[in-house]
Amino acid sequence: MSINVNVFFVSDRTGITAETLGNSLLTQFDGIDFRKSTLPFINTVEKARSTVDYINHLAETSGSRPILVSTTVSDDIRAILRGANSLFLDLFDTFIPVLELELNLHATNTAGRAHGVADTKRYYARIDAMNFALEHDDGQSSRGLASADIILIAPSRCGKTPTTLYLAMQHGIFAANFPLIEEDLEDQKLPRTIVPLSEKLFGLIVDPDRLHQIRSERRPGSEYASLRQCSFELRQAEAMYRRLGIPYVNSTTMSIEEIATLAMQEKGIRKQSF
Amino acid sequence: MSINVNVFFVSDRTGITAETLGNSLLTQFDGIDFRKSTLPFINTVEKARSTVDYINHLAETSGSRPILVSTTVSDDIRAILRGANSLFLDLFDTFIPVLELELNLHATNTAGRAHGVADTKRYYARIDAMNFALEHDDGQSSRGLASADIILIAPSRCGKTPTTLYLAMQHGIFAANFPLIEEDLEDQKLPRTIVPLSEKLFGLIVDPDRLHQIRSERRPGSEYASLRQCSFELRQAEAMYRRLGIPYVNSTTMSIEEIATLAMQEKGIRKQSF
Repeated sequence: MSINVNVFFVSDRTGITAETLGNSLLTQFDGIDFRKSTLPFINTVEKARSTVDYINHLAETSGSRPILVSTTVSDDIRAILRGANSLFLDLFDTFIPVLELELNLHATNTAGRAHGVADTKRYYARIDAMNFALEHDDGQSSRGLASADIILIAPSRCGKTPTTLYLAMQHGIFAANFPLIEEDLEDQKLPRTIVPLSEKLFGLIVDPDRLHQIRSERRPGSEYASLRQCSFELRQAEAMYRRLGIPYVNSTTMSIEEIATLAMQEKGIRKQSF
Repeated sequence: MSINVNVFFVSDRTGITAETLGNSLLTQFDGIDFRKSTLPFINTVEKARSTVDYINHLAETSGSRPILVSTTVSDDIRAILRGANSLFLDLFDTFIPVLELELNLHATNTAGRAHGVADTKRYYARIDAMNFALEHDDGQSSRGLASADIILIAPSRCGKTPTTLYLAMQHGIFAANFPLIEEDLEDQKLPRTIVPLSEKLFGLIVDPDRLHQIRSERRPGSEYASLRQCSFELRQAEAMYRRLGIPYVNSTTMSIEEIATLAMQEKGIRKQSF
């Protein structure tokens, strides 16, 4: 029988930092059924008090002490949360005093800077990047390709679109993607539109079994989805990447974040923070 | 003259957790020019050693001690990084021992669980959600609308698409969006397709000035972009949301993350973690 532990990600804003931090820590523990909830916008003394009441109630009825992962900037609110019957892990409590000493500065104690619209210019850079990605998805438009920071290429259904959108959304990168169709792959030639942009290219492949499975969901029983066709396209794509010196990854066991990070590293693209 | 401090986000995987943690902390300090770099995939003793050499070199030449924000799981690699001439802040060093005590368990010390493909089923849920969002962007398709978890509605260019894609990418939520066109707004009636789905609706507005500015970039000088037209559409949209009891936000000063978090909270949608 596995143990249940209630975990709360509490924040005065979105709770995204608390979730990221908390999930990273919790993945290090096996055999426990963590029941996670995010409590965002706990930004008044009243909301903090009712949060504590709720956590205390759960602590009494559930049989195990909850864990509270907090990224609450306000000292007042944090003091209330600390009073809950829980293991209290707070990002600011822990690291801000060390940084204040190091930098010889007082922290500003301002909430919501991490995922708020701190900087309008950057906000628009991100929206622009997302629009660019949508307009240049799957070779739809070649108009702005020359302004792309990176162009992902791959046979159909290898994961170009999610990675492109992730690069735009998380990092404000101008990412496009271009499909490699059977003709390109047979001739071992890049589509003509992207030949002059070869410096920007980054290739994707996956394992043939995986591609067969993904394509079969879309078009079951088709030649397009057959293992034979998938293997052929992937073999040809990989051969072309190698011959032309295009960096690439096999993304079969990778997350979108990992593919994006590798692609940026390979292309020397610096991350922007939002 | 502002002070420069080099900050490194170091990780054995993508570095996303280290960036989130570090950026949250750094936003609390004004007046310092933080020069941030992410060093992902520092997953061997050799890479850790050359990271330390690089940081030490910078510490000597830059005149201020670098800050190293680490989320490195391996004890060996962390021990090497700790030797660098820097302020060393490590997530695992800090919180894992406390959690081990609380849970009466040893941490597994496995890298890359936070942003790796830990769970294939979840990975596909996320890709499915992104495909759903792309297929149901801007009222393109009504085929699957009934399976949407949420449908964002707004006049053109109020930020429906980025929020929809964010909900899909970050949380695996089936999010669609539907435009409110002039006819809908004049008649104060929802588009017929979404009338039966009113439980799923969430509205967006922005300030008229902002909308005027955004639309002017697309179609400068047009009636569509005029302040008069923008004000009219927004006034009508807000009146309709109120009359029909559709929850909504004015997103002018909000980030995509904040809009998404509010919308999920309002609709009682639970977050998934990836």
